[in-house]
Amino acid sequence: MRTLYHTIDILLTPNEMLHNSSILVDDTNIAAVGKAAEQEPTDLKVDCSGKLAMPALKNGHAHSAMTLLRGFADDMKLYPWLNEKIWPTEAKLTGEDVYHGVRLACLEMIKSGTIFCNDMYFFLPEAWRAYREMGIKAAVGSAIIDFSDPKKAEEARRQILEEVDRFGPKGNEADERKRVSLAIAPHAIYTVGADTLQWCAERAKQENIPFHIHLAESEKEVANCLAQTGKRPVAYLDELGVLDTNCIAAHGIWVDEEDLDILAARGVTMVHNPASNMKTSAGSCFPYQEYRRRGIPLMIGTDGCASNNALDLFSDGRLAGLLQKHHFGDPTLLPAEEIVALITGGAATHDEKIGPFGNLGAEIRAGAPADIIFLDLTAPRMAPLHNPISNIAYAADGACVDTVMCDGSVLMAGGKVPGEEAIVAAAAEAATALVGRN
Amino acid sequence: MRTLYHTIDILLTPNEMLHNSSILVDDTNIAAVGKAAEQEPTDLKVDCSGKLAMPALKNGHAHSAMTLLRGFADDMKLYPWLNEKIWPTEAKLTGEDVYHGVRLACLEMIKSGTIFCNDMYFFLPEAWRAYREMGIKAAVGSAIIDFSDPKKAEEARRQILEEVDRFGPKGNEADERKRVSLAIAPHAIYTVGADTLQWCAERAKQENIPFHIHLAESEKEVANCLAQTGKRPVAYLDELGVLDTNCIAAHGIWVDEEDLDILAARGVTMVHNPASNMKTSAGSCFPYQEYRRRGIPLMIGTDGCASNNALDLFSDGRLAGLLQKHHFGDPTLLPAEEIVALITGGAATHDEKIGPFGNLGAEIRAGAPADIIFLDLTAPRMAPLHNPISNIAYAADGACVDTVMCDGSVLMAGGKVPGEEAIVAAAAEAATALVGRN
Repeated sequence: MRTLYHTIDILLTPNEMLHNSSILVDDTNIAAVGKAAEQEPTDLKVDCSGKLAMPALKNGHAHSAMTLLRGFADDMKLYPWLNEKIWPTEAKLTGEDVYHGVRLACLEMIKSGTIFCNDMYFFLPEAWRAYREMGIKAAVGSAIIDFSDPKKAEEARRQILEEVDRFGPKGNEADERKRVSLAIAPHAIYTVGADTLQWCAERAKQENIPFHIHLAESEKEVANCLAQTGKRPVAYLDELGVLDTNCIAAHGIWVDEEDLDILAARGVTMVHNPASNMKTSAGSCFPYQEYRRRGIPLMIGTDGCASNNALDLFSDGRLAGLLQKHHFGDPTLLPAEEIVALITGGAATHDEKIGPFGNLGAEIRAGAPADIIFLDLTAPRMAPLHNPISNIAYAADGACVDTVMCDGSVLMAGGKVPGEEAIVAAAAEAATALVGRN
Repeated sequence: MRTLYHTIDILLTPNEMLHNSSILVDDTNIAAVGKAAEQEPTDLKVDCSGKLAMPALKNGHAHSAMTLLRGFADDMKLYPWLNEKIWPTEAKLTGEDVYHGVRLACLEMIKSGTIFCNDMYFFLPEAWRAYREMGIKAAVGSAIIDFSDPKKAEEARRQILEEVDRFGPKGNEADERKRVSLAIAPHAIYTVGADTLQWCAERAKQENIPFHIHLAESEKEVANCLAQTGKRPVAYLDELGVLDTNCIAAHGIWVDEEDLDILAARGVTMVHNPASNMKTSAGSCFPYQEYRRRGIPLMIGTDGCASNNALDLFSDGRLAGLLQKHHFGDPTLLPAEEIVALITGGAATHDEKIGPFGNLGAEIRAGAPADIIFLDLTAPRMAPLHNPISNIAYAADGACVDTVMCDGSVLMAGGKVPGEEAIVAAAAEAATALVGRN
């Protein structure tokens, strides 16, 4: 099936536009763009007047099922919030809850133009099923927490081995396009013992899958790590030998020059979570310029809905830009093109590959997967169109998204996802049951 | 015409909810709320299942017609941005441009739940016409700039006297509900001479209309004022005798303890513009806690679309909360209820009156004007509903707004404003012509 989307403006890359042009999609991939597309045979032609095509958005770090805890607890200090509210409630989670929470997260992401999510949470099989049904791409890892307890560590290894068997590159044969793939996701250095961290890293390298971890998020994490190991968190992980090109780390706000040099040397990908860091008052600011200067691959993440409280990367991209300008006192920092690169998965070094995920499709070009969204240029906040890149970075919100395509499949058209009311209702019901459970 | 909106959740105040209840609107005002509403005779009953009613949003500071410059210049240092981009383009503005720019702004505000705007810009008669046609409330002032030039000062006074005659409380007889009212709006201390500032303040007090000014926005403003007058901007304005309860000042980020005490003593209302201050790297942070501690009436403003670049107060309210937490390092600052109070016009001291505007209708109660919006609770980011106030403050965006009512008139229903495509197209055309004009 070859579909020509014509009469459409196209953001080819974060700073390159084609006006009134065409994209030919051949089932799952982009077959041709521009004049070349118009000369090919097609099965279907779709008039896209008034729309702008751009690479779909990619979420670098989330706990998707935490949609269930949206609005459950806000405006609290970090540790009371975790100890009194989030963790006790998460202890009552079921797989069925997670299934509904991930479906709501996918719906929210699709509606705001996101077709990839790097997810770390619990009940992986149910999360997997939700992603498969909703049709977006994901890397999914179970949040591993063992508190250095040998029994818990043993259990974690068994769980990971099972997941590798069932969902790893060899096991996951059901998905010929590998839209959903496995990651190994030890939670953080303060919740996972050194042995387990090393075991996880070795297993992830053997299986050639991502190693996903929270890193350098709080001052306390740094202080405790220094007290216990004599090293800062990045240097500690490096000493354990776990930092590599398959590593994707979230937060990275409490880092010094040496940390940054290590991360660059090891090819680690870093995910900035501006809304979450601001809401929890993580107490430092993501040193974007320092990361960028070293060519460290970067993404933007939403984090979970307990600390954001939405999953709209247009909002988080804009926030990242505003935060850099404010915090470092320079309005030229993190300009519009770089915001667009960050949210589309194109803020990588050299060959535009995000370490653990390869090429995420940050460009609209022949041969790439058809991971494309169409924005509605008749939305009030997209007018006037002096500079489409500025409007995308600073004015658009998720509601400007009209159409979402993942591997060529149209997941949303005209702003509507089939069955969305039922997805919202089921998640709301699961959330109410969760917080009421004894 | 008495309309009963029933089966609806109601946010009565920023921290008080009624579930599955009713609102009776009698033409322009709220006649009754809750059980009382259900016992009254009605002409029309509207089932609002799945919706949440709340006080409509109020924009404390904007340059509405700057929608025309959305995306025209970003990521630049403040003075090159103003001198090279914004001011030369504004010099080519026509009244017709402003008319179309304000209509686009009103459309954007209605679509995101805002029914009041405190506006300062040029070509007041055309802005006035646009507000009247679009049906929202506004206080409109011409931005007065004389650079202490006696000829320009003379001209400014003549203009203001004409506006007072035509649009002031005595002149504006066409509008029996006073939905659009006049303000006197000298731009700032660095663009307006002392004589003109005093003349404007006296005239505003005589006419009992707001005095709207930019204040304490940049470090340079403070440094120059100190060098020229020996006083900081707030103290300088106080010495001129212009600060009073009819004064509404925008920005207020470069203030010290003495400034804050003066503002409190004079009853000045302050407007926080978080997105704009962050985007231009204004170099300081709005000391929200200090303002609040002194009971100073506060609002949130979007500022103009050249420095924001949208007019969605849900986004700016959330940003204000995130910024306080980040900048002052405390996640308990500016919690959800206060965010909701700020964007609905209820963050005033004592009697909930915003100095120059009186009671802006921050509560849904019998006798108040029917300035109400309905949110769509089936929107993915409004689910689950553990805490509606949290969802409004931290998750909602403008696109969650289903219905907007101003003085009981339904300006938007089902997310659609009549004629919106034509409004967007006309503004886009005006903007293109503006930047292409010699």
